Amino acid sequence: MIIDCHGHYTTSPKELQDYRDAQIKGIEGGGWKPMKHDLNKRVSDQQIRDSVEGAQLKQQRERGTDLTIFSPRAAGMAHHIGDAAVSEHWTEACNDMVQRVVTLYPKNFVGVCQLPQSPGVNPKNCIKELERCVNQLGFIGCNLNPDPAGGYWTDPPLIDKWWYPLYEKLCELDVPAMIHVSSSKNPNFHFTGAHYICGDTTAFMQLVTADLFKDFPTLRFIIPHGGGAVPFHWGRYRGLAQDMKKPPLTDYVMKNVWFDTCVYHQPGIDMMLKVIPADNILFASEMVGAVRGVDPTTGFNYDDTKRYIDAAQISAADKQKIFEGNARKVFPRLAKSAAMAG
Amino acid sequence: MIIDCHGHYTTSPKELQDYRDAQIKGIEGGGWKPMKHDLNKRVSDQQIRDSVEGAQLKQQRERGTDLTIFSPRAAGMAHHIGDAAVSEHWTEACNDMVQRVVTLYPKNFVGVCQLPQSPGVNPKNCIKELERCVNQLGFIGCNLNPDPAGGYWTDPPLIDKWWYPLYEKLCELDVPAMIHVSSSKNPNFHFTGAHYICGDTTAFMQLVTADLFKDFPTLRFIIPHGGGAVPFHWGRYRGLAQDMKKPPLTDYVMKNVWFDTCVYHQPGIDMMLKVIPADNILFASEMVGAVRGVDPTTGFNYDDTKRYIDAAQISAADKQKIFEGNARKVFPRLAKSAAMAG
Repeated sequence: MIIDCHGHYTTSPKELQDYRDAQIKGIEGGGWKPMKHDLNKRVSDQQIRDSVEGAQLKQQRERGTDLTIFSPRAAGMAHHIGDAAVSEHWTEACNDMVQRVVTLYPKNFVGVCQLPQSPGVNPKNCIKELERCVNQLGFIGCNLNPDPAGGYWTDPPLIDKWWYPLYEKLCELDVPAMIHVSSSKNPNFHFTGAHYICGDTTAFMQLVTADLFKDFPTLRFIIPHGGGAVPFHWGRYRGLAQDMKKPPLTDYVMKNVWFDTCVYHQPGIDMMLKVIPADNILFASEMVGAVRGVDPTTGFNYDDTKRYIDAAQISAADKQKIFEGNARKVFPRLAKSAAMAG
Repeated sequence: MIIDCHGHYTTSPKELQDYRDAQIKGIEGGGWKPMKHDLNKRVSDQQIRDSVEGAQLKQQRERGTDLTIFSPRAAGMAHHIGDAAVSEHWTEACNDMVQRVVTLYPKNFVGVCQLPQSPGVNPKNCIKELERCVNQLGFIGCNLNPDPAGGYWTDPPLIDKWWYPLYEKLCELDVPAMIHVSSSKNPNFHFTGAHYICGDTTAFMQLVTADLFKDFPTLRFIIPHGGGAVPFHWGRYRGLAQDMKKPPLTDYVMKNVWFDTCVYHQPGIDMMLKVIPADNILFASEMVGAVRGVDPTTGFNYDDTKRYIDAAQISAADKQKIFEGNARKVFPRLAKSAAMAG
């Protein structure tokens, strides 16, 4: 079984964006009133089918993957827009749309939720929606934005006690978080080309500087996009940890952290597989996501990452871990999902 | 000849830090008055010798490198402290100390200057010090901080016309800039583990989004630390440029950009050499810099990067470019420096 741990609903029906646009218009006009979505009435099952049949489902078939761990569009989260109430309503809408996909294609998708974060608002505010998604909708994880301020990084680092109430709930529910920033309102950071990769790198280094996992031994984080810059600078990170008198990274941060394989060329994947233990790597493609073109040097899509893993010079046992085994460990609720039933 | 294009004066005599401490104390007390440094009187030649003999010079000898392109301590620049006048005085002090090293060891070091940047202050304010360093002190380049706000990224991106007066001067003087952030006052960003690497990645992506070098065909940027995350995600960057209908990166950004070899393990260097043309790589070690320990897996210092290039499976011609040839092209004033005389 091939499990893609990082797919986003980037192709949702336009009604979702219409709802968001109305929110934003309301905020900008100053006359916004909290307004829950009614998309479950307004979006038909056929629309949901149409939105994924020619995109994510087609790619699953063509590329030979089985199941996508599926979450709302990452750039769409934009926690920096509006206040906590805006974020809550928007988050519910996004999560409910993912749930619609999962309900129609329970063998192809399993849900991971967006959280209703908002800059400066305590993350415990996210617990209610996290519980709804996990306990009621059957989601198996969440995306956690380390910078709800959208490129200004004004909230505390992930190792700060600020985040602890959310971590406690993640542990209690036994679900992991993918550390994933959203769009950037800071003109310095291109979203998929800078903010995403820098968010990953920044989060990892935060985890090096303090032993968060001593307080939360069962907390599990996925750092996407191959861990940002980390595998390329693995010597630097090993050396920095060593200079700080920390244990070797494999006995320390890497007991609770996994990198995904959203690295869009063979040499990058090969290098990553050389330095990062196979136990810490989860297969993912980010499709339909950041890069949509065909690589002229290969004739295949840049984000067809299964090809890189297939071609890698690693053992069959390691491939099995990366494609399936690790995901089952990181997402224990996967075993109970409809995807695995029968 | 082996030219290390990225060394910092991290071991300067304590009088330099005393001067800085007095500045900061003055700012904090509210009673700071502009005060030019008198370090050239207060620091003896012997102190300068002592500061590098057991450090940078020793490492040059041990590692077999010849010449270090040498600049003030990057984390020390801290352009976010105080105002433009504070930055100007501090910058003069730092550059003058580098000049002292170069004067004593003209065969071992050649200078690159810090700029007196300050958040929100137009970069043309840096021109006077740049001209002094190049025309009077014989420096051959500068370090340009893309985020003078120290981790808050409140100034415009490098492609903005805000920076153009400085670029015009760089072109006129025919000196390159290394794009190098400084310390971070933002607790989210560890300086050498996150801010540096993310600054590199961010700068590169800014250059992908708009064709700055169309306006400045002779402008040359060095992106240090192996280009941040860029080589690891070379497929992503090629794909993003392609999605944006830009030319292939090698015909575009890479005509004006070089990455250095401050990547502290063999697999990282090998991957970089596989995807980045040898014409775009400059040898560097960042010594004495970010990581000071010995890698237990090799028995050598993490930052002894010459060993990685020596061991790399590339042609002798490519090694010559990386160790020397490219540096001569990127730093044309090197040819006229004392290091190359006689």
